Amino acid sequence: MGYYNYNLTVDKLLDYGATVYPNREIVYKDRRRYTFSLFRERVESLSSSLEKIGVKPGDKVAVVDWDTDVYMSAYYAVPSIGAVLHTVNVRYPPEVMLKTVLHAEDKWVIIRDEFVPLLEKGKNFLNGIKGVITYSDEKEKVKTSFPTYDFWELQESGEKLPPHEIKEDMQATVFYTSGTTGDPKGVWFTHRDLVLHSMSVALTTSKPPLRSSQDDTFMILVPMFHVHQWGFPYVTMLVGSNYVLPGRYDPAMEIELMRKEHVTFSAMVPTILFMILSHPNAMKYSDVFKGWKVMIGGAALPTGLAYSARKMGINIAVGYGMSETAPVLTVAYYNSLVEGLSEDEKFVQQIKTGIPIPLAQVRVVDENGRDVPRDEKTVGEIVARSPWLTRSYYKDPERTERLWKDSWLHTGDLAVVDKYGYIRIVDRDKDAIKSGGEFIPSLILEDVISTHPKVGEIAIVGVKDEKWGERPVAFIVPKGEVKEDEIREFLMKKVEEGKLQKWWIPDKFVFVKELPRTSTNKIDKKILRSMA
Amino acid sequence: MGYYNYNLTVDKLLDYGATVYPNREIVYKDRRRYTFSLFRERVESLSSSLEKIGVKPGDKVAVVDWDTDVYMSAYYAVPSIGAVLHTVNVRYPPEVMLKTVLHAEDKWVIIRDEFVPLLEKGKNFLNGIKGVITYSDEKEKVKTSFPTYDFWELQESGEKLPPHEIKEDMQATVFYTSGTTGDPKGVWFTHRDLVLHSMSVALTTSKPPLRSSQDDTFMILVPMFHVHQWGFPYVTMLVGSNYVLPGRYDPAMEIELMRKEHVTFSAMVPTILFMILSHPNAMKYSDVFKGWKVMIGGAALPTGLAYSARKMGINIAVGYGMSETAPVLTVAYYNSLVEGLSEDEKFVQQIKTGIPIPLAQVRVVDENGRDVPRDEKTVGEIVARSPWLTRSYYKDPERTERLWKDSWLHTGDLAVVDKYGYIRIVDRDKDAIKSGGEFIPSLILEDVISTHPKVGEIAIVGVKDEKWGERPVAFIVPKGEVKEDEIREFLMKKVEEGKLQKWWIPDKFVFVKELPRTSTNKIDKKILRSMA
Repeated sequence: MGYYNYNLTVDKLLDYGATVYPNREIVYKDRRRYTFSLFRERVESLSSSLEKIGVKPGDKVAVVDWDTDVYMSAYYAVPSIGAVLHTVNVRYPPEVMLKTVLHAEDKWVIIRDEFVPLLEKGKNFLNGIKGVITYSDEKEKVKTSFPTYDFWELQESGEKLPPHEIKEDMQATVFYTSGTTGDPKGVWFTHRDLVLHSMSVALTTSKPPLRSSQDDTFMILVPMFHVHQWGFPYVTMLVGSNYVLPGRYDPAMEIELMRKEHVTFSAMVPTILFMILSHPNAMKYSDVFKGWKVMIGGAALPTGLAYSARKMGINIAVGYGMSETAPVLTVAYYNSLVEGLSEDEKFVQQIKTGIPIPLAQVRVVDENGRDVPRDEKTVGEIVARSPWLTRSYYKDPERTERLWKDSWLHTGDLAVVDKYGYIRIVDRDKDAIKSGGEFIPSLILEDVISTHPKVGEIAIVGVKDEKWGERPVAFIVPKGEVKEDEIREFLMKKVEEGKLQKWWIPDKFVFVKELPRTSTNKIDKKILRSMA
Repeated sequence: MGYYNYNLTVDKLLDYGATVYPNREIVYKDRRRYTFSLFRERVESLSSSLEKIGVKPGDKVAVVDWDTDVYMSAYYAVPSIGAVLHTVNVRYPPEVMLKTVLHAEDKWVIIRDEFVPLLEKGKNFLNGIKGVITYSDEKEKVKTSFPTYDFWELQESGEKLPPHEIKEDMQATVFYTSGTTGDPKGVWFTHRDLVLHSMSVALTTSKPPLRSSQDDTFMILVPMFHVHQWGFPYVTMLVGSNYVLPGRYDPAMEIELMRKEHVTFSAMVPTILFMILSHPNAMKYSDVFKGWKVMIGGAALPTGLAYSARKMGINIAVGYGMSETAPVLTVAYYNSLVEGLSEDEKFVQQIKTGIPIPLAQVRVVDENGRDVPRDEKTVGEIVARSPWLTRSYYKDPERTERLWKDSWLHTGDLAVVDKYGYIRIVDRDKDAIKSGGEFIPSLILEDVISTHPKVGEIAIVGVKDEKWGERPVAFIVPKGEVKEDEIREFLMKKVEEGKLQKWWIPDKFVFVKELPRTSTNKIDKKILRSMA
């Protein structure tokens, strides 16, 4: 009794959304819809059922699903009783996926019917699992060889919870990030991390140029297993926007959903944007793209793609972060130095890596930890502080120590800073190509090549070279017929224009039908390197 | 080393503002201007100077000033070194004001030249004061009988601070509220309280109908000693708006500043709005009011005034809170139930007490702590939880216990709830009188009047007043013959003695044979109010 020690816990976000935006909707494809108010009821019921079947504070609960209302319920119901949500990467190879379930020591699994056979493959070694909660869209019961519960029954049969007092420093989530080397690393976040991240992202997206508001309908095209779907399942409650969940990725269906649900705000990696805009239906529905607000992250946005999007009336801002950072650290919104520039100049800023969002401190530093000059040339590493970064890699003190060297989180991303303070990533530490002792910033090179009208997608990797150490090789998905000489000529012009160094031009161009992808839809440079 | 435990401290807000909005301005009348970037430099310099003269973490630093750049510097520089900012109410009678300095155990004072004589009155009993920092707008040195430092020297001579690691749970501010009973009560807030309050207010004002943004210029017409000027000196850094400080209150000058600095966003009590709109210059400059965003709080907004403002194109939303709540709990922004209503219907909602801002939980409850129905009739008390409420009244456990009964903060405000969930205050639980947005502590006033030899019993109640909101009326049971003029003369003497403010003197004196009583023999003010 007495002073109420208010904890920053995710149930408070849901409480706010359901109180102030009760008739906003969460929509799963054309199958199910909930108002925020009904959604809160169902989440509370699910929470209480989870407790009843034995889920305890600290228990890890794995979710294996596409982007659905079931997943969204778990985002709230699991942490609200002090349990930990493990968002399992379903695009990992089955063995790797099951390894993460084992490594996280998951005790419970919430799983969509189609993934059950995959889980059964781990039957012999997943001894820690106490129960599996299954569901199918058709609401048929799905059995497993573990103790099995039906999701719909749990969601409907629970009671309204008595108020839980979860501490904000309790772990709320865990998930694995493969990076591009070694075993997947587990990162984890507390309730407080998630709430503060949500507040900051909500405030940032409310700013120009995105100006998100309760008038928007969100459809986030980032998997829900991928870094909290960039935080939006929580952010939506603060913004008061509708929230559309597209299930399994399918561009035609997504375009249709956009039209039907009047989607106005999305977030995605560049590849998804590329796929949507190049889909045959895109032209048919071109009006739905007009005014569409899109936050792009997860990989460098090719300039060519950015300008195509702009031509269609899409309002783009790049965002940046990583698994370790919950994820958002920067967004390319307007600071006070660029807001007075022309629309064209502002657009150039919108597609850079961006500036820190509220409460984040993001710097580009040299080897001695000093800020690099704002000359757009000097390359440094991005380091960060904010109140929502992972404390450690799960059960991995060694890599944790490297991550938190000097009490700054080291992103391993190399970047420059322009005169307005905007960061631009020029390379990933491990993707960097060093030729003759100098770095070739592969992202800049890719970007320039992408502006050739016949280049669809492009990726540069370094290959060993006796003379130079490393030399770049370009992999290109062409649009129609294109010859290597055409591209070389084009690049020579760019050299004359001062946009490239001559020695950056790749030694070799490989034309392919498509580029290999990682489980999070990023281009898989590991595979390309082995191909080269 | 290792994981950086990020604390939510006010220096982080300034750091954000100066990083992302470096050329935004803080403007003090026509005298001084700073960019956010320069302002941060000056604040850091001031902080370092304060340390050098001996200000220690935990030391209370009183500020006695109008709304100036000096005050704004103190808002950041004092808490940033772990010291506590005491925002002294300069509208208290001198004796009461000095009492608060004594009660807070202030060790340092930052004071404007014109208030120095007032401070000297306390010379004999303010033994705890280690130093006084004076300033004049003309930059002349101002001496006192205490060890004296010149503000401008301190502000310019300091060094860039090494990073301070202040803990977020450290006290950052303290101030006194006369509120509802005699002695002023001290309320206090931590860094974390202020940061979370700022995040929530910034997010709220970005929502419709106010839609504040970096395109706005703020001029807040609430004294800086009054509940953190409603949080805006901190909020402005998150929004990225210019910030205009008008010094001592003067409607003609403020209208002129509005015009000159293109002010677009303000906050104030209804009385100030009334004075500005009824000022002869208002008509001359009517174009500056078009689109002006105004948050109204501190007292009930008379409907007539609200509609006059609307007619002039002013965009109004009411806000609500109190000293104990930092202050904001609700704002009358749009929830999802009212956004589809007509403009006229929405306006009716905008001038109610409002709905909770993000992270605040605000309820209207009956005597058993149950939510009242949304019928706009059933009256209950407003109770609240949020992560920015005062933990206790300073050195007053008894009143603290009442404030935090049942772990909800009891506001003492009586309200109803409409079908859309909007709260509307209908009455004050207690007997304070609010005139021009400021409390007239009726018990102090009664106490002074009762010292007149011919006054037997005395009770003060508030009556509605178009201009001031409320004005006091005195009911007196005389001892023998007494005339109103005699009492007025007596009270004027008390004003000269610094025991009363002139504007506290009741407008009307009613002489009665006896005062009505409740069943427990207390004076029944409800009956008196209906008589008045």
